[in-house]
Amino acid sequence: MDLGASTWTDAAAAETELAVLPVGSTEQHGPHDPLATDALLAEAVAEAGAAAYDGEVVVAPTLPYGISEEHRAFAGSLWLSPDTFRAAVGELVESLAAHGWRRVVVVNGHGGNTAALREAGRDLTVPGERYVTSFTWFDAVDTSAIDDEAVKMGHAGPVETAALLATHPELVREDRLEEGAAGAADGWGEWLSGVNLAYGVDEFSENGTVGDPTAATAEVGEALLAEATDALVELLDAVATRELD
Amino acid sequence: MDLGASTWTDAAAAETELAVLPVGSTEQHGPHDPLATDALLAEAVAEAGAAAYDGEVVVAPTLPYGISEEHRAFAGSLWLSPDTFRAAVGELVESLAAHGWRRVVVVNGHGGNTAALREAGRDLTVPGERYVTSFTWFDAVDTSAIDDEAVKMGHAGPVETAALLATHPELVREDRLEEGAAGAADGWGEWLSGVNLAYGVDEFSENGTVGDPTAATAEVGEALLAEATDALVELLDAVATRELD
Amino acid sequence: MDLGASTWTDAAAAETELAVLPVGSTEQHGPHDPLATDALLAEAVAEAGAAAYDGEVVVAPTLPYGISEEHRAFAGSLWLSPDTFRAAVGELVESLAAHGWRRVVVVNGHGGNTAALREAGRDLTVPGERYVTSFTWFDAVDTSAIDDEAVKMGHAGPVETAALLATHPELVREDRLEEGAAGAADGWGEWLSGVNLAYGVDEFSENGTVGDPTAATAEVGEALLAEATDALVELLDAVATRELD
Amino acid sequence: MDLGASTWTDAAAAETELAVLPVGSTEQHGPHDPLATDALLAEAVAEAGAAAYDGEVVVAPTLPYGISEEHRAFAGSLWLSPDTFRAAVGELVESLAAHGWRRVVVVNGHGGNTAALREAGRDLTVPGERYVTSFTWFDAVDTSAIDDEAVKMGHAGPVETAALLATHPELVREDRLEEGAAGAADGWGEWLSGVNLAYGVDEFSENGTVGDPTAATAEVGEALLAEATDALVELLDAVATRELD
Amino acid sequence: MDLGASTWTDAAAAETELAVLPVGSTEQHGPHDPLATDALLAEAVAEAGAAAYDGEVVVAPTLPYGISEEHRAFAGSLWLSPDTFRAAVGELVESLAAHGWRRVVVVNGHGGNTAALREAGRDLTVPGERYVTSFTWFDAVDTSAIDDEAVKMGHAGPVETAALLATHPELVREDRLEEGAAGAADGWGEWLSGVNLAYGVDEFSENGTVGDPTAATAEVGEALLAEATDALVELLDAVATRELD
Amino acid sequence: MDLGASTWTDAAAAETELAVLPVGSTEQHGPHDPLATDALLAEAVAEAGAAAYDGEVVVAPTLPYGISEEHRAFAGSLWLSPDTFRAAVGELVESLAAHGWRRVVVVNGHGGNTAALREAGRDLTVPGERYVTSFTWFDAVDTSAIDDEAVKMGHAGPVETAALLATHPELVREDRLEEGAAGAADGWGEWLSGVNLAYGVDEFSENGTVGDPTAATAEVGEALLAEATDALVELLDAVATRELD
Repeated sequence: MDLGASTWTDAAAAETELAVLPVGSTEQHGPHDPLATDALLAEAVAEAGAAAYDGEVVVAPTLPYGISEEHRAFAGSLWLSPDTFRAAVGELVESLAAHGWRRVVVVNGHGGNTAALREAGRDLTVPGERYVTSFTWFDAVDTSAIDDEAVKMGHAGPVETAALLATHPELVREDRLEEGAAGAADGWGEWLSGVNLAYGVDEFSENGTVGDPTAATAEVGEALLAEATDALVELLDAVATRELD
Repeated sequence: MDLGASTWTDAAAAETELAVLPVGSTEQHGPHDPLATDALLAEAVAEAGAAAYDGEVVVAPTLPYGISEEHRAFAGSLWLSPDTFRAAVGELVESLAAHGWRRVVVVNGHGGNTAALREAGRDLTVPGERYVTSFTWFDAVDTSAIDDEAVKMGHAGPVETAALLATHPELVREDRLEEGAAGAADGWGEWLSGVNLAYGVDEFSENGTVGDPTAATAEVGEALLAEATDALVELLDAVATRELD
Repeated sequence: MDLGASTWTDAAAAETELAVLPVGSTEQHGPHDPLATDALLAEAVAEAGAAAYDGEVVVAPTLPYGISEEHRAFAGSLWLSPDTFRAAVGELVESLAAHGWRRVVVVNGHGGNTAALREAGRDLTVPGERYVTSFTWFDAVDTSAIDDEAVKMGHAGPVETAALLATHPELVREDRLEEGAAGAADGWGEWLSGVNLAYGVDEFSENGTVGDPTAATAEVGEALLAEATDALVELLDAVATRELD
Repeated sequence: MDLGASTWTDAAAAETELAVLPVGSTEQHGPHDPLATDALLAEAVAEAGAAAYDGEVVVAPTLPYGISEEHRAFAGSLWLSPDTFRAAVGELVESLAAHGWRRVVVVNGHGGNTAALREAGRDLTVPGERYVTSFTWFDAVDTSAIDDEAVKMGHAGPVETAALLATHPELVREDRLEEGAAGAADGWGEWLSGVNLAYGVDEFSENGTVGDPTAATAEVGEALLAEATDALVELLDAVATRELD
Repeated sequence: MDLGASTWTDAAAAETELAVLPVGSTEQHGPHDPLATDALLAEAVAEAGAAAYDGEVVVAPTLPYGISEEHRAFAGSLWLSPDTFRAAVGELVESLAAHGWRRVVVVNGHGGNTAALREAGRDLTVPGERYVTSFTWFDAVDTSAIDDEAVKMGHAGPVETAALLATHPELVREDRLEEGAAGAADGWGEWLSGVNLAYGVDEFSENGTVGDPTAATAEVGEALLAEATDALVELLDAVATRELD
Repeated sequence: MDLGASTWTDAAAAETELAVLPVGSTEQHGPHDPLATDALLAEAVAEAGAAAYDGEVVVAPTLPYGISEEHRAFAGSLWLSPDTFRAAVGELVESLAAHGWRRVVVVNGHGGNTAALREAGRDLTVPGERYVTSFTWFDAVDTSAIDDEAVKMGHAGPVETAALLATHPELVREDRLEEGAAGAADGWGEWLSGVNLAYGVDEFSENGTVGDPTAATAEVGEALLAEATDALVELLDAVATRELD
């Protein structure tokens, strides 16, 4: 059920305890992918997962903002502080639970949100009463065919660009993919002793891209998203059947 | 400029100090209007105002959540606390300003957000450096032709329903308008000594509606939105020309 | 019962669940009215209402500070942040309730406090257990005889000045009323599209006054306060009889 | 200058950097002294000190609430949390300083506020720019003639009762002094290893009194307040002459 | 039981409700005593008291940081804000209580922590369910033989230096005791009207010392610590036997 | 320089901008390793790294508490909330920087702290003025010889037990290693779709251990710690030479 498009009487008729809350970010994705990339892909995976799941799932409106300050050198990137992001997610989950939707998966499209969501998930779970977890779609897929270990997912790289080509091709500036590839095609800048020394993404990528997006195709994107959708369905099933009082 | 659909390089090219941030809510709007009503209408007015304005305006992604706890008795209503809502708006405005967009109008579609936005506007304005204000679209239009003084705007009443019929007719359940009218067609419940005694909307409207939506038409909605758009354009002009250092 | 003047043993003997907490501000009121105006008038109405009510009412000491930063350009205006003001009112209400006085009306004398008190009232009400609301005295009276629509209440204008002449004539500098009238006699400065563009009161009134105080008389003030007192009594009755467990 | 009774134009004419902010509490003071005791005495000392000081001093309205939860067992005691109390004092001091009154003495009448005020004073002082300290009137006087070491000041005991007889005799229930003496005439209950084990005052005093108020006289009260006034004057002088940039 | 050195299975076997949490500071102690002085002595007293107590006591790891900003002029002094210090102590006490150790004594070695711990103790105590208090070791001993009234305890003075000579002689720079004595041998700088006017310790002691450490001996230190240990044992006994549900 | 053992005059003589702050936890480490494990190992690595570094490094006292609530089912585990942990680390870093030590590496021994430290590092870094990062010792070493991919580091498993045997052999209960191995020798319980479904460690390990500690030896521990020390030295060098104004 697409909650935003539903009326409250529709919502009242939902016989489920299961809800997903998509969260993304508004942040630079190179010269070729739109600022809304993370929100669009989280929403796409959330909707696909809910549709494929064998049972009813409430899909809340997408929160289009996240923890993106490390992109502040690039115009248009907007951000919430980690504290406010956790508070917002927490209050939304609590209001979902107030309606009986007490099994919640936050479906995330932004790597910078992941740690904060894990912290929030613990805070919001009440053993025996409520279960909350988060799912970052690209952490659940095998991307080794399209990027390499140093790039891992990248940023506006081959994985996200392919996924966008599958879902929102009109928003990808294909004529700027070469330009995008001139960013940090080889990875996330300098790591030392398990630590990434950069403060901002601009320290290692002049145009904000990490990874080479030129190889991205809609077909690859569809396959990646299908894999993510399957993974979400599996997770929804585990969350739906977890024992609560 | 639709920020979410733009790339950062597009955003960097914007030669303006003016931005709008649409905010709405996810809350019950009777048995006939969708939970996303306030967000959809705020977004529609913001986009129309930016398009009509003679100059560039950055339109940030819509924040679809607001201060809606008074609707908690109705399924699907989700809410942020006033503190978190103010914090989120504040941080988004500050990140807009970090890119030079230091003249910001928050375009609002939910009456329950208005006071909090006024408080936030003051906090975020820095005399001489940054100017932030908020605009609630239905406070800027003359609705007397379609509702009466006791109803004022109502809730999922003639004004919002008409506006939705103009922008998102597929989301209005026209076959339930009669049912909607069985709510609180005459107004907001009991007032005494300048005070509304109700704690929740459910105390005076069984189905969440205030006002009678049956008279709503797309034509009326278009006229109301056109008036709101004009008012926003006028406000944008005043904000754009306000003296800053 | 005047709580401050009572002993705890007197307070323990009170057989009521009803309390009022007067709140005001310390802020400029033109060259002719004192900085304590809002606190003095809130206290006067609270005491008169409690005296006139047919039953016992605890009157807590007046909080003489409120949300007044928009008057910061005028010497002597002191202010609490909205957060601290809400926290203070909240803790005082909770301690009133700890003694069984769980039906509380905050009696307010400052327009800048009104929205924050409404927010606090919702937070502090616990359905079935505790009921808290607020009453801004001049919102409950018909001032049309003494001011006009544009002025509404004004600030240190005809309404407040008249009320002070009735309660604390020695604090009104009657020889400066003409000077006061040279402020913003016609209203609250520029409004556009439902929005007041001013950041501070000094942007539209050089001496801080809004409205023309020269017409104020003690007789008018007495009539206004009597009307406010009646309204408060009616509200107290509704609060006293509201169903709680 | 009594700030509350002044107009802003009077306040603007004050040629001083020196202000005092009286703070008290609303808390039980036995069966014989009023709940407002601490506020009344702080105000009396603040006014007397300002009057006696050779120079202009702004006297802000009295904050009648403080940190009194340890009296919660006694009806009518109201309290702020330490956090809110510190925040309120801090914001008031900052607004005083915004008008140039950057040398501030908080004049305190409640022992339970003392530690919090010391913490606030440090936070609010900005070396070279602003100096803030607090003064608890009974810590500055020699009370050994009227109480003993175990009682130290007491609570609604000989010192406070004498002071009230000097300033507000109509509020002292002299016919209940004997009853008051039946509280904890000998001191503050059990101390062990430098620690007072009681959680609330009611654990060691059934009627809330500590010390024997029957010996209190207006003459003694006058002498004590005169001593406190002198001490405050001396402190004001030191604060006024402390080197700031 | 030394909790840090124990395994959880050992901890699970503890049959007690009694725990101590030592807290100190990292702050200058003159040219002769180490920055860890307060933490080392709190830990020594806590361990000795637990060992001497007739019953099992859990000794939590020492929190080596406290409220020390008044020493910021001296290199190496580190500090927590009062708010964070109270929060940390509070959460540690709550986790102790989660394991059944609901009678907690915070054993403190730093005067600057005392007021904050008293505030925390009240907040953390739940009448009938949990009892939390704090003990500052040097407040429980008679130091009149080694210092005088004006010095009271001092800072890196005769009391602390003697105690360190008894517990950690290798950390006392005995060749710098004379240098230490050149600080504020006579006391804590200027007091006026019950108020210490200094903002930082550096205003009255150039090297940070208060009191004359040259007279300190290990024998005196042992006697002082033995007295503190006895006092703690007595307090533990009172806390262990206090009535809880 | 061991800050706790130093005097402030020693600290003032330090000619460096480089400091390390060791942080650990107090949490269960199976039936065989002590609750202080994480703090002890962080401290050992911090001290070894500072000693091996070619230049002066200030080593602050170890914060022995961290984010450990997921171990709350096991007796003796104590925890700070993520907010308080970040606040404490932040204030300590700021006070280090107040003395000129503005290049700070937080040396961490607890996996549960890592994400919070990364968040804090960003908040505390001020581009051009201050650089703060964190280093989790076991993330910088190759543990593949002693554990496998599923176990990764484990908990009280082969890596930590070996390291403790090298540094604090007296605290390892070698006779309980077999018992420890009966925990979750094969890994961290159930993972699904990139998500670990467990709320607490007790859901997948009855005795709290993850990984098999029986293979641990002091020799292996020494090698691991030597590798961590080298990595820290390399990081210190990068931090020391990073460009600041």
